[in-house]
Amino acid sequence: MINIAVLGYGTVGSGVVEVINTNHDSINKKAGEEINIKYVLDLRDFPGDPVQEKIVHDFETVINDPEIKIIVEVLGGIEPAYSFVKRALESGRSVCTSNKELVAKHGVELLEIARSKDINFLFEASCGGGIPIIRPLNSSLTADEIDEITGILNGTTNYIMTKMSADGSDFDEVLKDAQEKGYAERNPEADVEGYDACRKIAILSSLAFGRFVDYEDVYTEGITKITADDIKYAKKMGTSIKLLATSKKVGDGFYAMVSPVMIDGSNPLFSVNGVFNAIFVHGNVLGDAMFYGSGAGKLPTASAVVADVVDAAKHLNRNIMMNWSSKKLELMDISQVEERFFVRMKGSVAADGQKVKELFGDAAFVEVDDLEGEFAFVTGVMTEAAYQEKAQHADGIISMIRARF
Amino acid sequence: MINIAVLGYGTVGSGVVEVINTNHDSINKKAGEEINIKYVLDLRDFPGDPVQEKIVHDFETVINDPEIKIIVEVLGGIEPAYSFVKRALESGRSVCTSNKELVAKHGVELLEIARSKDINFLFEASCGGGIPIIRPLNSSLTADEIDEITGILNGTTNYIMTKMSADGSDFDEVLKDAQEKGYAERNPEADVEGYDACRKIAILSSLAFGRFVDYEDVYTEGITKITADDIKYAKKMGTSIKLLATSKKVGDGFYAMVSPVMIDGSNPLFSVNGVFNAIFVHGNVLGDAMFYGSGAGKLPTASAVVADVVDAAKHLNRNIMMNWSSKKLELMDISQVEERFFVRMKGSVAADGQKVKELFGDAAFVEVDDLEGEFAFVTGVMTEAAYQEKAQHADGIISMIRARF
Repeated sequence: MINIAVLGYGTVGSGVVEVINTNHDSINKKAGEEINIKYVLDLRDFPGDPVQEKIVHDFETVINDPEIKIIVEVLGGIEPAYSFVKRALESGRSVCTSNKELVAKHGVELLEIARSKDINFLFEASCGGGIPIIRPLNSSLTADEIDEITGILNGTTNYIMTKMSADGSDFDEVLKDAQEKGYAERNPEADVEGYDACRKIAILSSLAFGRFVDYEDVYTEGITKITADDIKYAKKMGTSIKLLATSKKVGDGFYAMVSPVMIDGSNPLFSVNGVFNAIFVHGNVLGDAMFYGSGAGKLPTASAVVADVVDAAKHLNRNIMMNWSSKKLELMDISQVEERFFVRMKGSVAADGQKVKELFGDAAFVEVDDLEGEFAFVTGVMTEAAYQEKAQHADGIISMIRARF
Repeated sequence: MINIAVLGYGTVGSGVVEVINTNHDSINKKAGEEINIKYVLDLRDFPGDPVQEKIVHDFETVINDPEIKIIVEVLGGIEPAYSFVKRALESGRSVCTSNKELVAKHGVELLEIARSKDINFLFEASCGGGIPIIRPLNSSLTADEIDEITGILNGTTNYIMTKMSADGSDFDEVLKDAQEKGYAERNPEADVEGYDACRKIAILSSLAFGRFVDYEDVYTEGITKITADDIKYAKKMGTSIKLLATSKKVGDGFYAMVSPVMIDGSNPLFSVNGVFNAIFVHGNVLGDAMFYGSGAGKLPTASAVVADVVDAAKHLNRNIMMNWSSKKLELMDISQVEERFFVRMKGSVAADGQKVKELFGDAAFVEVDDLEGEFAFVTGVMTEAAYQEKAQHADGIISMIRARF
């Protein structure tokens, strides 16, 4: 029997308890031993809940019990999660976490402690919820050099973008609806400003490229400026606008960014809708692959955490090597990244098309019937710097969205 | 240094050599040791090819060299692959194979030998080419009880169905085009009759359900009877027809089948086109997940084989537990499986709709302008047996395709 402790009895924590109870027999069979939840750490009591007898309020109870071999951290946030996880690893316990902030900020140090103690620090649930992506990156795509990861990594924003596209409604309206349905937090900043996706792409990139990507270096732009009018253009063009988190190798350099991007039907991410997430990976020999599933939610996230517990149980005193060194990956400045740009402009193609061509070179124009006094165009491929330079000399630009098709 | 031998220098074998050469440094880093190809077994010589000096013609050279720790089998077919692999495992060498026929037919026995010797028999490339699916099923989805796997598991047939849909052409015409482009074999039977997909779904089901699924028990129907007229109806309805391989838990029973199925845009497999493959998995806590990528081709398949070599190198004397017992899973008779059915019939909705309703119950009708003298309908959910019974009493049925939407 392997005794574990769960830190935090919130949404994910109660999901972990539920998954271990529901699939008890098959989980024990796959772990090779019985997994027993001995403690659940929470400040609150849960009278009437079957877990009540396991509730403890003091981390010292957990850390001082030599029977505890694996600790599940699902508190979220940096503190006290970081202090608890660090002490757990230093004391020789493997840790499984869903905490993307913790992994993005302290992953390098925590992985190093796990390695030195021959135990494991696992975080499948930190990116893409229930979608298996950390373990495939780490142990399946080992024959490849990964040169691109692009993900729809945040269910809240993907729900909002999908709903805006389906209903033709504006951002604020859909956000309100999402908050009422529980798909968005009361304080939605981390989701809609792209901060959540930023941490996730930093984690995935660190694993894929084998060097530490600091999330603070990742250019990040949210979806708050996307309007119903932008969606009208996208529909006219047969495209859709998604919040994409991308990291990519270009020559000897790497860049990483989170921003709204217009994509078309040839992109496998095009039809990833609602709260679903998906992660596109390109390997130099594998080619294109994509992993799709529920990026959040109590049970899918708990499924990923418990899969880590099973792996930790199978490797109790054996470190699962992670391809993530402490050496920092210096990212290219975003100004050198090449994209196409979808640009809305005041005027009309007839009156202003020629000027646009002179300034931006070859451009594909589009007009939407019920949007008067404006038009749009998609530029050829150019660097962000080149676009910004040209845009300074253009009159009447309303907005710009990056375009990849 | 870990010495390996590659059995077979055909498409996949030469891909394995190419991948190991191309990504030498990163592969060695992930394996923790240098992977060295010492022998390539082939009946032919390859004068001028850098591999020539490693070519041997006699398996005895390989099996009698104690330096060889891992053997890659990419010969395909049952013999001599089976004899070679069995001897390799019995002599304590781990084996990595892309050979679906071998795994579907002898997987149980070969896994058992590997377990008894504390080595590994790995076959990531046998299903879905480069798509990581075997390892995720085995080591990522461990918190779940899998209750459904549905895959587009054959690139040739998916290419044909996609092309038929895009061009409105008939099966024979598209098959000829696919053969000319090298997407279909001269003898296309294994692909177009569904035999290839049948072996793959048997392998995936054995892993997902933890018991041996005999491919000979899987109901299998190919795409040879699908016509351009069927596609016209599908387009009218906003659906597409795909060759799906499915295994599913229903109550306490399981069924498995390969057949053309009509699906709509709400199915994540709907937009999997061309030679791409995808595997949809439903877990009782995870919910929906999908794995997408190149299902065949030299380098993607080799990528999966080499990932197995890396895993075998990391676990040289330690068996990676597979959730695949020798206990056979008895499948439900197909007659008890419930589906909806798309049925084409002579006549017209006006003249024959009422009769159809009396016989089949609630039905959704569809007519296509340029198909005169016929109409079609989609039944409600009923067992295959119920459908067959009703169909016997119906006059003028032209064809039937299962429908899931």
